[in-house]
Amino acid sequence: MCQLLGMNCNVPTDIVFSFTGFATRGGRTDEHKDGWGIAFFEGAGVRHFVDYEAAISSPIADLIRRVPIKSKNVVAHIRKATQGRIALENCHPFVRELWGRYWVFAHNGDLKDFAPTMDGCYRPVGNTDSELAFCYLLQELRRRFGDQAPPLAALTAKLRELTTAIAAHGTFNLMLSDGSVLFAHCSTALYYIVRQHPFRQARLSDEDLQVDFAQLTTPTDRVAVIVTAPLTTDEQWSQFASGELIVFVDGAPLG
Amino acid sequence: MCQLLGMNCNVPTDIVFSFTGFATRGGRTDEHKDGWGIAFFEGAGVRHFVDYEAAISSPIADLIRRVPIKSKNVVAHIRKATQGRIALENCHPFVRELWGRYWVFAHNGDLKDFAPTMDGCYRPVGNTDSELAFCYLLQELRRRFGDQAPPLAALTAKLRELTTAIAAHGTFNLMLSDGSVLFAHCSTALYYIVRQHPFRQARLSDEDLQVDFAQLTTPTDRVAVIVTAPLTTDEQWSQFASGELIVFVDGAPLG
Repeated sequence: MCQLLGMNCNVPTDIVFSFTGFATRGGRTDEHKDGWGIAFFEGAGVRHFVDYEAAISSPIADLIRRVPIKSKNVVAHIRKATQGRIALENCHPFVRELWGRYWVFAHNGDLKDFAPTMDGCYRPVGNTDSELAFCYLLQELRRRFGDQAPPLAALTAKLRELTTAIAAHGTFNLMLSDGSVLFAHCSTALYYIVRQHPFRQARLSDEDLQVDFAQLTTPTDRVAVIVTAPLTTDEQWSQFASGELIVFVDGAPLG
Repeated sequence: MCQLLGMNCNVPTDIVFSFTGFATRGGRTDEHKDGWGIAFFEGAGVRHFVDYEAAISSPIADLIRRVPIKSKNVVAHIRKATQGRIALENCHPFVRELWGRYWVFAHNGDLKDFAPTMDGCYRPVGNTDSELAFCYLLQELRRRFGDQAPPLAALTAKLRELTTAIAAHGTFNLMLSDGSVLFAHCSTALYYIVRQHPFRQARLSDEDLQVDFAQLTTPTDRVAVIVTAPLTTDEQWSQFASGELIVFVDGAPLG
């Protein structure tokens, strides 16, 4: 299995604190050492970093921990290979384009007997069930809505239907973002927290590191962090229900 | 205008020496300071780095200069904005998937009155003529060959036809790779060199740096480097003819 980390904010925010704790699970405090990846949206563009080295020893992961890249939507993943060999093309997150936007996807879980009919417009490059599920999602969104992006409510409803159907094949915890919002679907384990005014301190559970967000933020900032297992020991994380899909917009779950 | 750098090899090779000279043109020895990018194939996977900072001062470019990433096909670009604002989504190279492979594209030049009909399968995310030309190329390859990759000779013939047609709209120096081969098309300026046994020394023209390739290679290694303007002062670079498209395979131009 793998672990997921996502961030959705109302102003571009760096993910150094959360990624530092998360990356520690990529080979030190946990066993997810078969690669990692992270994608940062900046406007419509994406910075995409993937690596098959353990996050804890990768020089590129070290760069992410040192250089604050500010983004309103981030998706990260550390991998313990279950399906698909350890190779760059099997590292999450995956990136594809739909409706003139990049979409970023990462998955934690296994799908069994998942062999949808693919029409060729999106085809996996690697051999993971995860990339196949991503390609299928985009194919079905295009099939349903054609060449134009639909309103968020219609998009969410369709994604809820699709993720429920795919989750019937196994475990389908996922994060998906087009740079404007972040969708998170839980099969088995996903937690989130919304940090907003009044900001306070937080201490990582995987590293001896704490931060006082009040020193780093303005009162109007709002940041949602979504993760497979809570990253801090002194904050209250909300657990997703099994089968729940939440849309995060401007740093908060959409009501 | 911008500058292009490509590498095609028969064994995974790092591009640190060439990129060091090339990146120096991104703000120090030349004016290309409106962003840069590089894509490395590793098997079917791609490491893709883009940045709107000048290559000379970017911490990510510094990482590329320090950490040798080995690849058989590399495409890099430094940008001086002509069309499209300075933004991440306008930085080359661009990446899309076709036939279950990633394709990487970078362009130097300007296209005028280039407004092809797009069927929606590939749509630009940014607003450069370059990304539009890339999307159009992939669309037309899919239109011609359907869902299966054709043999290299047929693919090359179609690309020759498409690049000639697009080049009628202006300047269309480009590099395109699917990780197995590298296509380079010249409108105005492109040079290449093939380094192979017996290897010798080379000195960068943009940095006080020289390397003895004999110390770093085995006798069977072969590396083609393709670039807008020669990178070294003591090697013989071959100039492309205007309108010429060359396919590089295993470190050499295909005869």
